[in-house]
Amino acid sequence: MNRSIIRFILCRVMQFEGAFFLLPCIVAIIYHEEQGVVFAFSAAAAFALGTLGCMFKPKSTVFYAREGFVTVSLSWILLSLIGAIPFVATGEIPNYIDALFETVSGFTTTGASVLTDVEAMSKTTMFWRCFTNWIGGMGVLVFIMSILPLSGSYNMNLMKAESTGAEVGKIVPRVKDTAKVLYGIYIGLSVVLVILFLFSGMNLYEALIITFSNMGTGGFANLNASLGGYSHSAQVIATIFMLLCAVNFNVYYLIITKRFKDIHKLEEVRWYLIIVAVSITIITFNARSSFETLYDSFHHSAFQVASIISTTGFATADFNTWPMLSKAILLMLMLVGGCAGSTCGGIKVSRLLLSLRTLKRELNHITHPRSVKKIQYGGNAVTEETVKSVGSFMIAYIFVFVVSNLVVAIDNFDFQTTFSAVLACLGNIGPGLGIVGPTGNYSTLSAFSKLILSFDMLAGRLEIFPMLVLFYTGTWKRN
Amino acid sequence: MNRSIIRFILCRVMQFEGAFFLLPCIVAIIYHEEQGVVFAFSAAAAFALGTLGCMFKPKSTVFYAREGFVTVSLSWILLSLIGAIPFVATGEIPNYIDALFETVSGFTTTGASVLTDVEAMSKTTMFWRCFTNWIGGMGVLVFIMSILPLSGSYNMNLMKAESTGAEVGKIVPRVKDTAKVLYGIYIGLSVVLVILFLFSGMNLYEALIITFSNMGTGGFANLNASLGGYSHSAQVIATIFMLLCAVNFNVYYLIITKRFKDIHKLEEVRWYLIIVAVSITIITFNARSSFETLYDSFHHSAFQVASIISTTGFATADFNTWPMLSKAILLMLMLVGGCAGSTCGGIKVSRLLLSLRTLKRELNHITHPRSVKKIQYGGNAVTEETVKSVGSFMIAYIFVFVVSNLVVAIDNFDFQTTFSAVLACLGNIGPGLGIVGPTGNYSTLSAFSKLILSFDMLAGRLEIFPMLVLFYTGTWKRN
Repeated sequence: MNRSIIRFILCRVMQFEGAFFLLPCIVAIIYHEEQGVVFAFSAAAAFALGTLGCMFKPKSTVFYAREGFVTVSLSWILLSLIGAIPFVATGEIPNYIDALFETVSGFTTTGASVLTDVEAMSKTTMFWRCFTNWIGGMGVLVFIMSILPLSGSYNMNLMKAESTGAEVGKIVPRVKDTAKVLYGIYIGLSVVLVILFLFSGMNLYEALIITFSNMGTGGFANLNASLGGYSHSAQVIATIFMLLCAVNFNVYYLIITKRFKDIHKLEEVRWYLIIVAVSITIITFNARSSFETLYDSFHHSAFQVASIISTTGFATADFNTWPMLSKAILLMLMLVGGCAGSTCGGIKVSRLLLSLRTLKRELNHITHPRSVKKIQYGGNAVTEETVKSVGSFMIAYIFVFVVSNLVVAIDNFDFQTTFSAVLACLGNIGPGLGIVGPTGNYSTLSAFSKLILSFDMLAGRLEIFPMLVLFYTGTWKRN
Repeated sequence: MNRSIIRFILCRVMQFEGAFFLLPCIVAIIYHEEQGVVFAFSAAAAFALGTLGCMFKPKSTVFYAREGFVTVSLSWILLSLIGAIPFVATGEIPNYIDALFETVSGFTTTGASVLTDVEAMSKTTMFWRCFTNWIGGMGVLVFIMSILPLSGSYNMNLMKAESTGAEVGKIVPRVKDTAKVLYGIYIGLSVVLVILFLFSGMNLYEALIITFSNMGTGGFANLNASLGGYSHSAQVIATIFMLLCAVNFNVYYLIITKRFKDIHKLEEVRWYLIIVAVSITIITFNARSSFETLYDSFHHSAFQVASIISTTGFATADFNTWPMLSKAILLMLMLVGGCAGSTCGGIKVSRLLLSLRTLKRELNHITHPRSVKKIQYGGNAVTEETVKSVGSFMIAYIFVFVVSNLVVAIDNFDFQTTFSAVLACLGNIGPGLGIVGPTGNYSTLSAFSKLILSFDMLAGRLEIFPMLVLFYTGTWKRN
């Protein structure tokens, strides 16, 4: 284990967080808010500490998968630990555990909140809160890679650990260029969304912060009514962009480069669209009685399906009161999440497809033991390595889910609160059902539960293994 | 696909069911109940039809794994379809779907009931109801194999499909002898249990029917209060035998043959005992406030843990009212089930162990990509085939669970009723939480839900694949 290189990258991460803190400062200047001072100090401190640490160059630049996983998980933990400080220092979330929960929820794009009244928060701090959604969406280390001159050897190992899905798709040959292309698309779509939100009647501040949470599929909003407090057209725009952000970003690269033939190969996107269409249709009719017109039912169903499958967690209506079938579908969508290579949490549609094909192959193996079949996906045969990794991921997901449930159960809330809180955090959705439902929040949970759920949010965003690697003794053995 | 041999075995199954129907007739004679006539007619009809079918010998005795799976699933379905008839004919469960649910629940040793007042049932019919638990416990085809002169070629394929766990353990070289040994142990333990129950204050009839459900880990009882209506010592005896029946029956063979050294190799049993001990300890203290004394709390916790992990489903107390942590532990135990090669449902401790070891190997693979490790289990290296089959089983279990939940959700019951009904049926436990909890029943569910849950019970008992094979088109193709 090359500890010096990990230390070096962690200090780089601190420098970047220092830079990120400057943005809320600008907001504070515009709105004459005193919270800007806290952010300015935080920016200076984080940047100074990071720079100090970076002055000691690493002894060796050897960087394997193991270092990649540990770096990514520690970076995200460090980002959250530091990012929580301004919330406490401004006094807007006085308890540090609460602030940490909120920050982890932000960076992991979960959107679960401990705030009972979000409207009481200053514009400066709210900007930081929503900005964490945007940073976390595309990934912090991918961002650092795209602008810093790091050697190619460790780029791939970082990318593997931070990006989502069973396989890492390099859309251009060099990892660094892939990161640049992805961030380019991300920023481009964000600019379009800000403009659209401005047209829908938002002011620039609102358009910016809602864009941050929308693009990052995070779900933080500045109103207690979430997106329910914005215009109908804003809700429609948000629905469309939530659905767009749950798609593999490679699709947009293929569109830009006019490789339409290759899009057709992306089975995952096709199935994602089918799942969305079917879910919206069923919920529209099932929850019909909760709304005045069929259009209203369709509008809110589409919004909620987009919000849940993209693991954003925006709300316009309280789906707690919908019929059980609608709730069950939404719970299943929480498990699924969007496509690999998107900003979503969850298991991902691709893993679902691969799982079902593994199942079909097993049935074939049972009935015809001598025939050997490869699993096909996206027009190619899938390696046994990938099939195994999908299986292990499912086991790991269930394992973390079960253990977390047992711990959160100690708080003695009702069944649906306990169960859905873990599901909503592990899946990076945000709101669950019951007390932690769309009109509730996580404030009443114990500090211990909040820490466990914070772990779950990080595990969900980083797809479990980077977090588990930290607890595996073999990781820390010197070769 | 050799259809004629499947038809032949199905007819044998009918003959056997005809013979089974004779036992309730004896009860009817003793207690002078008119229901005996229905059972006598059913016995005659089933035996005659079966014998008629068996007169046409199969054209070929070729019998592969595919035939094994289809035969097992169709046999269980046929058993249930016929076994439900007397319930309707006696008028004690007038609706056929309800009767089918109750019979499937019996044979699969689930113990879920649609009866709102079990005490209203005649002694004759109640005897049949509980006897289905006993038959289902050890498996019907294993029973037929142990006494009929079938050729060795298809014995193994039937055993594979009907017995539980990731690997079939032949304790003696010939499959037929294995079946005989297993049934010998099963009958032996049953006799001991009947005698113990007689000492605890039950009359012979009660001792017999409670032994049937207890040994089969089924959970049907003749009192509305379940085992809560029997003496304290009866409850203690039941607790011990539920725990004993959740152990791999090979253990008893090893004890009889004094191969104590080999018992030590059975890791699954060791972990099973650890899980039981830890669960009882936590629940005893967590649910302490629900009871007068600490001993009471221990007694009911031990009973409930034994009842749930052995997937029996007997109740002495309403665990719906216990704290959430206790309920969460019981729910997790529902998922686990007992050991492979026992009479339990659930995922089984061995699969849990193999899953966790697969997870550990994945972590090792991530951190040390070049090292290749075999998974060790019971002192041997596990084949990749078995690792894969465990993964597929988990996927299949989740798949059936998710789809069933969506269907049962249409009934629009609350979250915990819907969720736990599917879990309790798929895991062959019986009572869930909420409306289907230990003091409730399944009567209010729709006919459609009852059919889906019947499928789940069969899928749970036969470990998913034999039921899925029926729906796989490849099964029915002629070679």
